Amino acid sequence: MGERHIPFDGPHQAGVLAPPAAQGWFAAFDLTKGATPARVKELLRTWTRDARLMTTGRAPSGDDSMALGHGPSSLTITVGFGASFLRSLGAPVPGPLEPLPVFPRDRLDARRGDGDIGVLLTADDAVVAAHALRALVRTARGTADVRWQMKGFNAIEGVTVKRGTTPRNLMGQVDGTGSPRPDDPGFDASVFAGPESDPAWMRGGSYLVFRRIRMLLDEWDVLPRVRQEQVIGRRKDTGAPLSGGTEFTAFDLGRQRADGGLAIGPGAHVRQASAAANSGAVILRKGFSYFDGYRADGTPDAGLLFLAFQSDPRNAFTRIQQRLALADELSRFIVHESSALFAVPPGVTHPAAYLGQSLVEAL
Amino acid sequence: MGERHIPFDGPHQAGVLAPPAAQGWFAAFDLTKGATPARVKELLRTWTRDARLMTTGRAPSGDDSMALGHGPSSLTITVGFGASFLRSLGAPVPGPLEPLPVFPRDRLDARRGDGDIGVLLTADDAVVAAHALRALVRTARGTADVRWQMKGFNAIEGVTVKRGTTPRNLMGQVDGTGSPRPDDPGFDASVFAGPESDPAWMRGGSYLVFRRIRMLLDEWDVLPRVRQEQVIGRRKDTGAPLSGGTEFTAFDLGRQRADGGLAIGPGAHVRQASAAANSGAVILRKGFSYFDGYRADGTPDAGLLFLAFQSDPRNAFTRIQQRLALADELSRFIVHESSALFAVPPGVTHPAAYLGQSLVEAL
Repeated sequence: MGERHIPFDGPHQAGVLAPPAAQGWFAAFDLTKGATPARVKELLRTWTRDARLMTTGRAPSGDDSMALGHGPSSLTITVGFGASFLRSLGAPVPGPLEPLPVFPRDRLDARRGDGDIGVLLTADDAVVAAHALRALVRTARGTADVRWQMKGFNAIEGVTVKRGTTPRNLMGQVDGTGSPRPDDPGFDASVFAGPESDPAWMRGGSYLVFRRIRMLLDEWDVLPRVRQEQVIGRRKDTGAPLSGGTEFTAFDLGRQRADGGLAIGPGAHVRQASAAANSGAVILRKGFSYFDGYRADGTPDAGLLFLAFQSDPRNAFTRIQQRLALADELSRFIVHESSALFAVPPGVTHPAAYLGQSLVEAL
Repeated sequence: MGERHIPFDGPHQAGVLAPPAAQGWFAAFDLTKGATPARVKELLRTWTRDARLMTTGRAPSGDDSMALGHGPSSLTITVGFGASFLRSLGAPVPGPLEPLPVFPRDRLDARRGDGDIGVLLTADDAVVAAHALRALVRTARGTADVRWQMKGFNAIEGVTVKRGTTPRNLMGQVDGTGSPRPDDPGFDASVFAGPESDPAWMRGGSYLVFRRIRMLLDEWDVLPRVRQEQVIGRRKDTGAPLSGGTEFTAFDLGRQRADGGLAIGPGAHVRQASAAANSGAVILRKGFSYFDGYRADGTPDAGLLFLAFQSDPRNAFTRIQQRLALADELSRFIVHESSALFAVPPGVTHPAAYLGQSLVEAL
């Protein structure tokens, strides 16, 4: 079973455009000391071969049988490169991969951030994600080791919620409604490095910002629902904007209530995050809830693994986050605890091609 | 969606006999200082009411909307009491709830073991489990706080694997084939406290042993497959015993290979864990794989949340584990890191009844 299959090959890596997945696992790797460009090339070639196998439900050689009988189960494997990876290989670091600024209220744990290589694994089933991660780590031995690893979850589309349902986050809020869709005008330019962009190896690729965002759920929970809705700017039950309509109705940011106040308040999350408030900045978002038990202070260690794909973070995530960290009322209820930035090269479209090939073969 | 529904009401709590679930979350609570029997009674009454709602896809009052639209998604909520709970309430501790002995090779973390109350949540969907846990924790505030919390996973039956498939653990081994089935002779006597048993409040209940068992996956992985199969006593691909047949064929522990050696070796896990080797001891097992990232030494913090239900651990889990810790070849590849023991009272069969009622109303 687990027949759902998301093609690995294509102009873009599959994890960028795949629909919301029940499981989102992320691993960052660092190159081992003395890893040569030849070893790195071999690793990317092997990862590409094995990812192609596992995403069609086949096992790589030396398999541990962990996911025997599971089928592809919508597995995607998406690989990105950190600035430190390029420096290690002596390659220039593209402008969009320059370190993110430190944002107000950031409380980042460096041990769980950054990394030479980042891999996003998504699947219907945690066993399939665990199996694929183990396989990639085994292959990497001697060339790259895990630096940090996290995992998150969503509802299972078509099983526990209707297909096409926007996920709810742990705050109970519909989360991702406003994310752009591939048929939106300008989508490709917002998300993918274009055919003229520099460096050439990133053409068709995307820049991925990863943030582990802890939610202060106990503080959020005690807010009355009407206040929660004001903080977000959407109704909690339907996800409809407070300016009216249904979940996918466009915001009317100027709309006034009967008392003259703005229907969507000045500090509402959706206003502060909107393209209109950020000179048109757009990110393609993915979110996975995480729940890692309880901290010593009794609060849940839980929140959102937030991923944003874009053609240039300087004009997108960074611009939006600089605003949110200061003006978004939601920022009082969340803490950014990890951060990483990766250049996700384009997909592969030829059976002999491998991820990152045009980067590493130019070294 | 998520229409699958496992009835909450019944002579036994639903988590004992429910089929393998994709998500297994466990939380242990400690009573807050000064929690009175009246408060505890109120907590159990409220938990019962809310569990009944959530297991049919309805929301308790003051709900956070986290799982809105998910349906019951096979949710079960099963509550047990630790010896410390009974002592706090001035109730006698039944013999089967006496502390487990320390077993050879145990490396237990006391902060992640034991607890006054243990709650097992199982569901198809992690969002549904997280939502139910949050709801129980919210209700408990002022009476009980989370002591520790862990979560594990399996394949999704009927979605990523065929319904009725025995789960595979992270070692890639089919795990749970030999667990008894309700129609086996003697099942009820092995699993449930009988109608004459003492104390009366446990009649129809079961004793639950919880163990967090880390797997030394990197060491396991480098064993040749044939050696892995000898350690377990089953084939890796099909789960069939090395004495022949298919997954559910009974072991032939005396069967010899052509070279005269035992087909299932003297130290094989299935031999050492068998009822025959343990004076007939039988446990009803549940397992959930966990994968909590990587440890500082680079090894995965991963393994099995192991749960065993039985009518008396002294004649069941304890007897088996004393043997396994010494003689089981598998014991070299696993580490028991947490341990807890709970008395799981019977289920409720009347709308006004609540879990643990006959215990707390006798106080």
